[in-house]
Amino acid sequence: MSEIKDITKRDVDFAKWYTDVVTKANLVDYSSVKGSMIICPYGYAIWEEMQKVLDRMFKETGHENVQMPLFIPESLLNIEKEHVEGFAPEVAWVTYGGKEKLDERLCVRPTSEVLFCDYYKKVIKSYRDLPKLYNQWCTIVRWEKTTRPFLRSREFLWQEGHTMHATAEEAINETLQMLHLYEKFQREYLAIPVIVGKKTEKEKFAGAEATYSLEAMMYDGVALQNGTSHYFGNHFAKTFGIEFLNKDNKLETPYQTSWGVTTRMIGALIMVHGDDRGLVIPPKIAPIKVIVISIGDSELVTKEVEVLTNSLKENNLSYKVDNSNKTPGFKFADAEVKGYPVRIEIGPRDLEEGMLTIVRRDTLEKIRCPKDEVISKLNNILEVMQQDMYDKALKRRDSMIYEAKDYSEFTRIAQTKPGFIKANWCGDIACENKIKDDFSMKSRCLIEDEEINTPCVCCGKPAKYRLYFGKQY
Amino acid sequence: MSEIKDITKRDVDFAKWYTDVVTKANLVDYSSVKGSMIICPYGYAIWEEMQKVLDRMFKETGHENVQMPLFIPESLLNIEKEHVEGFAPEVAWVTYGGKEKLDERLCVRPTSEVLFCDYYKKVIKSYRDLPKLYNQWCTIVRWEKTTRPFLRSREFLWQEGHTMHATAEEAINETLQMLHLYEKFQREYLAIPVIVGKKTEKEKFAGAEATYSLEAMMYDGVALQNGTSHYFGNHFAKTFGIEFLNKDNKLETPYQTSWGVTTRMIGALIMVHGDDRGLVIPPKIAPIKVIVISIGDSELVTKEVEVLTNSLKENNLSYKVDNSNKTPGFKFADAEVKGYPVRIEIGPRDLEEGMLTIVRRDTLEKIRCPKDEVISKLNNILEVMQQDMYDKALKRRDSMIYEAKDYSEFTRIAQTKPGFIKANWCGDIACENKIKDDFSMKSRCLIEDEEINTPCVCCGKPAKYRLYFGKQY
Repeated sequence: MSEIKDITKRDVDFAKWYTDVVTKANLVDYSSVKGSMIICPYGYAIWEEMQKVLDRMFKETGHENVQMPLFIPESLLNIEKEHVEGFAPEVAWVTYGGKEKLDERLCVRPTSEVLFCDYYKKVIKSYRDLPKLYNQWCTIVRWEKTTRPFLRSREFLWQEGHTMHATAEEAINETLQMLHLYEKFQREYLAIPVIVGKKTEKEKFAGAEATYSLEAMMYDGVALQNGTSHYFGNHFAKTFGIEFLNKDNKLETPYQTSWGVTTRMIGALIMVHGDDRGLVIPPKIAPIKVIVISIGDSELVTKEVEVLTNSLKENNLSYKVDNSNKTPGFKFADAEVKGYPVRIEIGPRDLEEGMLTIVRRDTLEKIRCPKDEVISKLNNILEVMQQDMYDKALKRRDSMIYEAKDYSEFTRIAQTKPGFIKANWCGDIACENKIKDDFSMKSRCLIEDEEINTPCVCCGKPAKYRLYFGKQY
Repeated sequence: MSEIKDITKRDVDFAKWYTDVVTKANLVDYSSVKGSMIICPYGYAIWEEMQKVLDRMFKETGHENVQMPLFIPESLLNIEKEHVEGFAPEVAWVTYGGKEKLDERLCVRPTSEVLFCDYYKKVIKSYRDLPKLYNQWCTIVRWEKTTRPFLRSREFLWQEGHTMHATAEEAINETLQMLHLYEKFQREYLAIPVIVGKKTEKEKFAGAEATYSLEAMMYDGVALQNGTSHYFGNHFAKTFGIEFLNKDNKLETPYQTSWGVTTRMIGALIMVHGDDRGLVIPPKIAPIKVIVISIGDSELVTKEVEVLTNSLKENNLSYKVDNSNKTPGFKFADAEVKGYPVRIEIGPRDLEEGMLTIVRRDTLEKIRCPKDEVISKLNNILEVMQQDMYDKALKRRDSMIYEAKDYSEFTRIAQTKPGFIKANWCGDIACENKIKDDFSMKSRCLIEDEEINTPCVCCGKPAKYRLYFGKQY
C-alpha cells in the first residue's frame, strides 16, 4: 500500500502529483544528462502503442516514412529568416567532430522543415512528382531552460509530417485532414477531448502561414497543446527556390504543410485521466490491458491463472501476471499506480464458486463474473470503460469552460476559476498581450463556428474573432 | 529501359554498381549535410520490415524497449578508459545550447553503454532486479572520414540491446543467444548466410571481454560485419560501481552484454543479392512483394487489375500497381531496379486465354499461370524464391572461401582470389598485423569447430587458433 501513500493528492499539489505518478508508475527516470529523461519500458510501451495506431493512420492516408539527417548546417537553418529567429535561441550546436573543429556549426534538429525543403528542391521537378506525403519518426532537441517529464524536455520523441502539393487548396486540405486525424486519434484512443482551431498570428509557428492546434484541458484546468498542423503556403518553397513544371509546362511553386505530435501526449494521458491512486490508461491505448493477480498460491489458483492467461492470449488481450509473494493489497496498489485498465483477482474463495473478480481501474467497481464468461465480460468492460473515460473527461472539461463578455468578468473568472475562457477579440495583438500579461493566459485558438455578438473583451472595440484563452503547460 | 543502361555492371566496377543501385532504386539520397544520407521511402520501408521482425524476436525473448538520452556528458564517457579511447576520436561534440556555452561538452551518442550503466547503477539494487533485458531503437553518430550509403555514414539507425545479469554464465548465454538470433534472422529473412564467431583481442569492441560478430560475404568477396554481440563480464559494472544484494544478502557485481545491428544490413542485402538490373529483395523482408504491371489500358486489363489486387489484399500479399502510361519495357526495368520479388504482367493476350504472367525477380523466369490459381502459385513462388536466394548466396560464398597452410599460399590466394581465407594462427598480434599490412585483410573471427593441424600461417610457430581472414567494408 506504500505506493498509494507516496503519491501526493491531486488536489493538494497537482505538479507534485504528476511527478509522483510518472516516476512511481515507472514511465520515466531522471538521467545524469541535464534536461533529458530516460523513457522506461512501461512509458516506452505506451509510446509504441501510440506509434502503432498513428503510423497505420498515416499510411492509410497515403503517407510514407523517411529519415532525414539529425544535423542541420547553420547556413541551411539561416535560409528562412522567421524560422531561424524562432528556433536559433533553443538549439544545441555541434562544433567539433572528433578532435577537429568544424568549418560550419551544425545544430541538432529542433524540427526538420529546412531539411525537407532542401530535399524537395532536389526531387520535385514536375507536377508528376506531387504531392509528396512524407512523415518521419525521430528524436528532437530544443534547449529548454526548465523541464518536466514528457511536457517539456531538451529532447523528446515525435513524428513530423512534411508534405508538398501542387495547389494551395490541396495543401490546406492536407493541413486540416491531419488536424482531424489527430483529433480522432486522441478522442478514440486516448479518450481525450480536444478543441481544434487556428492559432492567432502571435501564437503561430515560426514561418507558417497558419497553425492549427489541438488544445486539451488537464485536470487542473490548464491547457496542454497536444499537437499542431501547419499550412506554410508557398513561403518556404519560394525561399528555397522549389519549383515544378505544371501540366502546361510552366514553372510554379508548390504549397507545403507540416504536422506533429510528440511524447507529450503521454503527459496529457496522465493529467486528464490519472487519479489519486496513479495512472488510468484508456483500454485502447494500454500496452497491458489486463493485470492478473493471484491471491495465495494454492494449486487451484495457479491452475486457473494458466487457464485464464491462455484464453487472454487466444483472444488477443494483452496481460501481465502478478504472482509475486507480496500481499494482495500491495499488488492491487501497484496495479492501480500503473493504471492497467482492468485487474482480475483470482482467489480461492471466488474459485470455489466458479467465479472471478474483475475490477475496473477508472471506477474501481468490482464485478464478479463466472469463470467461463470472463472474456466476453472483459471485452464488454473494456469497451464501456473506453467510452466512459472519454465522457467523463469531456464533461469535466466542458464544466470548466467559461464565457466572459467584458474585462471585469474576464478578470473575475481568471482569478477564481481554473479552465478556459471564451471571449471575443478585436484582433489587435495589444489586447492579446494585455490578457497574457495580466493573467498569464494565452490565446489557445480561434472559435470558428459561434456567433460574435459582443465587443472585444479587452478594449471594447468591435470584435472580429472569438477565442479560447487559457493558461498552458 | 534507360534505368538498366544507367547501372554500371557489377563485374566492371562493383563500388559504382552499388552507388548506382542505392540511388536508382530510390533507397537513399544525398543530403546537404556532409556524411549524412536521407533514407527515402523505399529504403526506410525495408528498414521498417527489418525492425518489425527483429522487434518481435527481441520481445519473444523477454526484452523491453527503452529510450536513453541522445547526449553523453564528457565526464560520463570518460569513466571507462578503454571505451573512451575507442570512441572519443569519432564523436560529435555539442558545445553550445542556444547562445550559451555549455559548462561541460556533450557528445552525441556513438553507442550507449555508459548511459545504460549510469541508469543500471540507479535501478539495480537486489538480485530481484535482475536480469535487466533492455533494447533501444535509435540514431547513432560516429564522425567517419569517408562515408558510403548504409555501409559507413556519420549517422545511422540501429538497435542496441543492453542487458545485466546476476551471473557470468547467464550473461554469456545472453550474448550467444542474441548472436544466434541475428544469425537466424539474416538466414531466414534476409537470405544471407553469415559466419558467426568470436573476434580476436585486436578486433574486439572497446571495453568488451569478448565480441562475437556476424560476417557476411558480399558479391565481390569482401566481408561486411553485419552485427555484433558483446560480453562485458563485470568490467563496466565494476568501473561504474553497480552492485546488487544476492540471495545471501551479500554484495555482488552483475554481468553485462550488448548487441546491435544497423541499417548496414540494407547494404548487405544489396551486395549479396543484387544483380546488373538492380536490387533483388528476398520475399520475406520485401515491403512490396508483388508489382502488378498492366499492359495497355483496355477495360479487360483494368478490370483484371482490380480483381487481382483485391485478392492480393485479402491474402495479405503486399503489392503495388504500375498502371502509368509508360512502355511495358520501362515498367519492367523500373520494377527490376527496385527488386520487387515478383511481377505480374496483365496483358490482353494472356487474359483472352484466362492467364497471367508471373516473373521471378531473381531468375527472371516467366511463369504463365491461370488467373484463378495466381494466389497459390504466388505463395509457392515466394517460398521457393526465398530458399533459392539463400542457397545461391551460400553456394557462392562457400566457393570463395579458401584455405592457406603457409604464407606463400596465403599470398597467392590473397593476391588472386577475392573471398575469405581460412588459416591457422599462433595468437601473436604481430602476425595478425603483418597480414593486415601486407594484404589489407583483417581477421574476421575465430573458427571454433575445426581441427588445427598446421602451424601459424604467418610465422610457422605452433598455431593455437583457426581464423577467417578477409578484406572488409
